[in-house]
Amino acid sequence: MEFLIRRGFLYPSFEIYGGVAGFYDYGPLGAMLKHEIEETWRKFYCYREGYLEIHCPTISPEKVFIASGHVKSFVDPIVKCKKCGQTYRADHLIENQLDISVAGNSLEEMTKIIREKKIRCPSCGGELGEVTAYNLMFKTSIGPEGKKIGYLRPETAQGMFILFPRLYQFFRKKLPFGVAQIGKAYRNEIAPRQGLIRLREFTQAEVEIFVNPENKEHKKFEKIKNYEVKLLPRDRDEEIYISLYQAIKDKILPHTMLAYQIFLVENFLVEVGIKKDKIRFRQHKLNEMAHYASDCWDAEVFTNRYGWIEVVGIADRTDYDLKSHEKYSGIELNAFIEFKKPKKIKKVYIEPNLKKLGPKYRNRIKEIIEEIKKIPKEKIEEFKRKKILKIKDIELKDDEIIIKEKEEVIHGKKVTPHVIEPSFGIDRIVYCILEHNYIERNGRRVLSLRPKISPIKFAVFPLVEKHEILELAEEIFEKLKYLGYPCIFDSKDSIGRRYARVDEIGVPFSITIDFDSLSKESVTIRERDSMRQVRVKIEKLSTILKRLIEEEISFDSLT
Amino acid sequence: MEFLIRRGFLYPSFEIYGGVAGFYDYGPLGAMLKHEIEETWRKFYCYREGYLEIHCPTISPEKVFIASGHVKSFVDPIVKCKKCGQTYRADHLIENQLDISVAGNSLEEMTKIIREKKIRCPSCGGELGEVTAYNLMFKTSIGPEGKKIGYLRPETAQGMFILFPRLYQFFRKKLPFGVAQIGKAYRNEIAPRQGLIRLREFTQAEVEIFVNPENKEHKKFEKIKNYEVKLLPRDRDEEIYISLYQAIKDKILPHTMLAYQIFLVENFLVEVGIKKDKIRFRQHKLNEMAHYASDCWDAEVFTNRYGWIEVVGIADRTDYDLKSHEKYSGIELNAFIEFKKPKKIKKVYIEPNLKKLGPKYRNRIKEIIEEIKKIPKEKIEEFKRKKILKIKDIELKDDEIIIKEKEEVIHGKKVTPHVIEPSFGIDRIVYCILEHNYIERNGRRVLSLRPKISPIKFAVFPLVEKHEILELAEEIFEKLKYLGYPCIFDSKDSIGRRYARVDEIGVPFSITIDFDSLSKESVTIRERDSMRQVRVKIEKLSTILKRLIEEEISFDSLT
Repeated sequence: MEFLIRRGFLYPSFEIYGGVAGFYDYGPLGAMLKHEIEETWRKFYCYREGYLEIHCPTISPEKVFIASGHVKSFVDPIVKCKKCGQTYRADHLIENQLDISVAGNSLEEMTKIIREKKIRCPSCGGELGEVTAYNLMFKTSIGPEGKKIGYLRPETAQGMFILFPRLYQFFRKKLPFGVAQIGKAYRNEIAPRQGLIRLREFTQAEVEIFVNPENKEHKKFEKIKNYEVKLLPRDRDEEIYISLYQAIKDKILPHTMLAYQIFLVENFLVEVGIKKDKIRFRQHKLNEMAHYASDCWDAEVFTNRYGWIEVVGIADRTDYDLKSHEKYSGIELNAFIEFKKPKKIKKVYIEPNLKKLGPKYRNRIKEIIEEIKKIPKEKIEEFKRKKILKIKDIELKDDEIIIKEKEEVIHGKKVTPHVIEPSFGIDRIVYCILEHNYIERNGRRVLSLRPKISPIKFAVFPLVEKHEILELAEEIFEKLKYLGYPCIFDSKDSIGRRYARVDEIGVPFSITIDFDSLSKESVTIRERDSMRQVRVKIEKLSTILKRLIEEEISFDSLT
Repeated sequence: MEFLIRRGFLYPSFEIYGGVAGFYDYGPLGAMLKHEIEETWRKFYCYREGYLEIHCPTISPEKVFIASGHVKSFVDPIVKCKKCGQTYRADHLIENQLDISVAGNSLEEMTKIIREKKIRCPSCGGELGEVTAYNLMFKTSIGPEGKKIGYLRPETAQGMFILFPRLYQFFRKKLPFGVAQIGKAYRNEIAPRQGLIRLREFTQAEVEIFVNPENKEHKKFEKIKNYEVKLLPRDRDEEIYISLYQAIKDKILPHTMLAYQIFLVENFLVEVGIKKDKIRFRQHKLNEMAHYASDCWDAEVFTNRYGWIEVVGIADRTDYDLKSHEKYSGIELNAFIEFKKPKKIKKVYIEPNLKKLGPKYRNRIKEIIEEIKKIPKEKIEEFKRKKILKIKDIELKDDEIIIKEKEEVIHGKKVTPHVIEPSFGIDRIVYCILEHNYIERNGRRVLSLRPKISPIKFAVFPLVEKHEILELAEEIFEKLKYLGYPCIFDSKDSIGRRYARVDEIGVPFSITIDFDSLSKESVTIRERDSMRQVRVKIEKLSTILKRLIEEEISFDSLT
């Protein structure tokens, strides 16, 4: 972390005001790195997989989170010291002091444990109060009356669920389809203390894939089924290295839609620079899952600083969210699934026997006909048995009603889609990438990011601050800027120190303008990792840089 | 707007729950368009101009906005109906009813006008209450105690000001330097009703350029000084079309740093598709400026729907913000400006005459020497006149002190940088681009965006849904996806309808796979605006598309 702050990747937020835990600023290098990760994610998920990106507000009205269950269930157990007023996370406090797990315990059970085991305030030794539920959403109010409660979203997902009718229309009413969102999410943590790992404001990248609940298969699974991953199923103590095909066959993974997402997640993580041998997929324990999930696999990455940390969660959220929003909004959130062949079904209905009813009820006959039309299927069955049917104050007898049957052709049925969700914590991924790619060797410090991910793509150095060289270097730099990559110009200190500086922040290529540049119209390009240099013509520089960065052609091909 | 909703650019947020004014979702097309605008902005400001991007939290502790003045000054005057409870913006209400301007009037003055002119509630006719100040920031609290007040930022700028010490370090302590941020900002509007023009949650892109207050010149101004713009200075009734050079010469623009920003802003707006003849720069009236600005020029764009609307504000914020944060945080927010030549100054100081003082004050001599060291400059001057100097209870006489002079070399001085800030409202720019580029002509509806800005870059169409053609089209599409552009595949309906569909959402190129594709290994590319088609070899398709999109080569060059 100290390195990250010193080099301009990250800064603690609000530092001049003493700081606030759980907030970090991305400095210029961190912001550029994060941006490259997000861009790679877009290419992966939005452009290649066709999960189209949308943007929803970060503030939502209360109703959304009442329906989603977050107002009730997005809580941590907390306990407050009666003496000094310090607040603690009750489960962590108990687990740390007694070395037992209280996952799944109720608030009352935790209070009881604290009483019985005489756990006291770790900071002042005072007596602790009752364990209560603390909601982790930031609360605000919308509009001038202050009555309309709003929350900052704890996940980007809900915006995509409540937009389902529009999205279903956009995707021309075909399942499966996927929607993606990159944006801020918020958790008002009690006492966050782990840098980028536990933030109160963080960036999520989420995909919600709406699928037919009767068909959770991915049509491209065949192509990737032999891909091998490290899985840690909930009923095992050790990781297994297994092909996705085998994991499906052994019922370790529930369906190929989820298996395919595991494949994508790992490929994405490796693409941005996380080491494959430090990735595993761990299945959530039953008592650990979020309130909406039926199954969940975390992509975990091994870090030296924090051990295994979750960076992506892949959940099967079933129809939990859509059903809840349907219930609370009163709006149908269905998809229509066409049968392969239309089905014929027999439909029973009743008609009034007007010959009998007409003379009997004369002036009320219209009303009675209307009421008979409304009679539900169950009532018809009941009538078949009882031979009598009550409508309001009237009792209709057997011969006053005619039961009929007709054949109907049905083309499909309504279903509530299920949702498969890969959810990425971008800030944690930033941290892992930095840790996995920072190398100290033979006195060199190198951030060995691949060119596509590096925050700054190239540096331009005039060898010395001599007038002609400086001028040529500035001219070259002005032109190269139009390539549209982040790049820097540096003329201070010796060339060796400048190389060392850019190595440390991961700049893959350095262009040096020297005395030969003036006469021979050529410059050197130095590659960060190998420290090799080649001399190239100035006129070819743009094309070569573009190919090195965009296509990642090998540096050897230039020599 | 109806078109934008139907086509998937925008949706009203929280629709299934009845909606909340001032919030919009970006649908897939809107989100991709917005993303292209942001990317172009990054290339313009961050990569070419070197204003490096950072990311600060959207939540800030109260202290930040007390210092910035937002807690006190970021307010609208509101008035509430005593009968029905409806809240109105008082100034708008008065202005609409009486057709007068109340800009700059105090709350009391507005209450008086309402009383005197007998303005009543427009919805129920009830009596209105006092005009009060309503703060437009969304309020929340940080952490479990609920005591730490936080606000959602009303502008991204403050995060950059309070990070000044870190940023100054990052830029190696040289002025000027610029920092950029793209992100969400929030204004809890009273009754927003204008689609993307007045949102409660919106995206800003801001640059804060920290400059030496004694040198607000831009070093590249010479190169662009003949660029002509439409200006509406505050003391004129009509716009003038004038070169930036002339505007500086005539003192219409205060300095070349601001003039250069006007040049950049207009070029950016034109680059993303806003028409140059519909852009003007209007200077704020004195009573209209934000509490922090000494001068402000709005880039306004003419729209058919809303008339002239502000899309960018270019403000000279002076040292207002840094000085305020310095005062409230107690941390120096200075830059050190080196003199061109070191200055020599004479410094007067005094020394004790120990020969006299030693024998006289023996045991207190140490204390007296220390006190003499602390004597400020003014006291020395006073001593020169009065020949007597009081330290605590002791009076020192003329011959007991020796006045000396020495020469000191000073290399520079501390200054509080001034800040020049171009601030972009991205959502408004999205709206203007869509309005300026949507064309209905001869029954065609075309969104005529340039390839770089278009949300979807190309579409792949199998001419008919025949097996071999479909298969080849899918194969080509799979490959083209790896170019890393948003693209779509569509096999439904006639080719004419498909062309019409992509024209309407601005897809610049459509690739059709037909019967000839099977035998001749070629496909057609159709250009949206001209509707012309060329046939190209499949193997060259990637390269050609890349050049059409990235380099925007002319379509003619393919024929």
